[in-house]
Amino acid sequence: MNTRNRAAADGFVLALTGGIGGAKLCLGLQRVLPAGGLRIIVNTGDDFEHLGLAISPDVDTTLYTLAGLANVELGWGRQDETWSFMRVLETLGGPTWFRLGDGDLALHVERTRRLAAGETLTEIVADIARRFGISSRIMPMSDDPVRTIVAVAGGGELGFQEYFVRDRCAPAVAQLRYAGADSARISSAAAQSLQDPALRAIVIAPSNPYLSIDPLLAVPGMRTALRARAAPVIAVTPLIGESAVKGPTAKIMRELGVPPSPLSILQHYNGLVDGFVLDERDAALAKEAGIPVRVCDTLMRSLGDRERVARCTLELAQAIGSPPLAQKLRES
Amino acid sequence: MNTRNRAAADGFVLALTGGIGGAKLCLGLQRVLPAGGLRIIVNTGDDFEHLGLAISPDVDTTLYTLAGLANVELGWGRQDETWSFMRVLETLGGPTWFRLGDGDLALHVERTRRLAAGETLTEIVADIARRFGISSRIMPMSDDPVRTIVAVAGGGELGFQEYFVRDRCAPAVAQLRYAGADSARISSAAAQSLQDPALRAIVIAPSNPYLSIDPLLAVPGMRTALRARAAPVIAVTPLIGESAVKGPTAKIMRELGVPPSPLSILQHYNGLVDGFVLDERDAALAKEAGIPVRVCDTLMRSLGDRERVARCTLELAQAIGSPPLAQKLRES
Repeated sequence: MNTRNRAAADGFVLALTGGIGGAKLCLGLQRVLPAGGLRIIVNTGDDFEHLGLAISPDVDTTLYTLAGLANVELGWGRQDETWSFMRVLETLGGPTWFRLGDGDLALHVERTRRLAAGETLTEIVADIARRFGISSRIMPMSDDPVRTIVAVAGGGELGFQEYFVRDRCAPAVAQLRYAGADSARISSAAAQSLQDPALRAIVIAPSNPYLSIDPLLAVPGMRTALRARAAPVIAVTPLIGESAVKGPTAKIMRELGVPPSPLSILQHYNGLVDGFVLDERDAALAKEAGIPVRVCDTLMRSLGDRERVARCTLELAQAIGSPPLAQKLRES
Repeated sequence: MNTRNRAAADGFVLALTGGIGGAKLCLGLQRVLPAGGLRIIVNTGDDFEHLGLAISPDVDTTLYTLAGLANVELGWGRQDETWSFMRVLETLGGPTWFRLGDGDLALHVERTRRLAAGETLTEIVADIARRFGISSRIMPMSDDPVRTIVAVAGGGELGFQEYFVRDRCAPAVAQLRYAGADSARISSAAAQSLQDPALRAIVIAPSNPYLSIDPLLAVPGMRTALRARAAPVIAVTPLIGESAVKGPTAKIMRELGVPPSPLSILQHYNGLVDGFVLDERDAALAKEAGIPVRVCDTLMRSLGDRERVARCTLELAQAIGSPPLAQKLRES
């Protein structure tokens, strides 16, 4: 067994993530940690059924990103994609507002087939991750349906994908709820990882708190498990100044009456996190955080950027006090 | 109203068809008849559910062929097709023996979605034909499931597509049955067309009698309606000498102990047909047919070939005695 593998056997880091920003950090973590040293619990609140297919956008973004298959230009779907399906679907008068690439479609069709045959989403995702050659363990937050529902200003509710994709986040958000969360069970893989003594640190990825992380925290047992763990929890800011790198985080905060600021994010995760990674442009806010902070350039454009933010996050966890992790980082 | 439309209003020809050979003749008929002068009842005995999708191979071959979208090289699917879906499905470990092109897939996904929403196959096919700009009326034989089952020599049964596509017709056929046919209802569109006084002639396309036409004839009411009609029924041979132009017709005949010959086909349709179109290479058999025969080159490679066989078929119907048809052909 080489040094890397010995280190991996020593423990693992657990990331909580949603869409593309979170997936980028997960890729960085996967690259700087020893093989097998990363596990990921992924939001399934934006899952939905479309065209009769079971679609799991955040799970797929995580799979594609960690496999090196993600379409970096689009920010979703697969690279080197073809679009014959959508072209023909349009001529047939089918619904075309949710774009599905031809290769991407295989994942949805195969997942739907396997779910209908009785496999759990957890089992399917684990198998696909293996086939994609991904060394990290990717776990849906739950095998039960949880659906993020957007109550819009002026009344009415939208399914998440209607809000996010069809309406391009234009409607003002009045409230968010996570239908099904109350009765959903945390997936056994996720529950086991949260209780595993080899857990060295938990990272809340720079995903949208309302759309990506809150659905995950709404699953009964998740908050309790996070509060009960010995390992430090580090959140990485999704905001730089008053802006999100991508997506509607700042817009939603304003609509909900929350000032868009990294400190508001910290406030949002109040009581759950032990450390916070701030962007260097917001370094002045560090003294107001009230918990240990590490500052770095959190923009992730290149692979090197992803690794830098991952290292910064792990160093903070190490500094807060996770001796086995510190040891692992030295060895790796 | 121009001459063509007036002629179409005068009556129509009804074709019974299955796969690619039948679709070629239907295209020929569509081209030589006035617009709206052709209706087609299509076999659905080779329909099946695959990857959770409702697939209707003969209906789709008919749609693609009459719309000018068929993949002539493959003999199935769409022209100018891409194959990203199958490539990725293979990496996911999904079943790949039944090839589905990316554009073709849109038809299956959309049909499955609309069936689940409560539409009938008849309604869906009519709408797609309209969207494809097809002037002929294409009607599934039934909206109820009928499934051709192949009992193989040595025991055991195969679903039709397992036999036909996966096993490439290699197993010896011991018997064929059409599961569900007993309780299937003829589609109302097909039943209405068979009883319509404007029906001028019925054409049994040069499809495989066992795999394409018999399932259709097994639907209760179909044989009775064919026997009751006033219009002549013309069968077009699927054999030239002892060989089928394409597909396993001759092989199956041998396996079932039937000498592969156009006269055996005629025997198979005994009591149902009034006229028979023979290939010119089999002209010597005409005197043994016992019913009116017309001889022509039945090989359909070019569009002109399809039109030639269509004209030959319609001329035979006219000669047998379908005065409105004769009038229509003169006017068109």
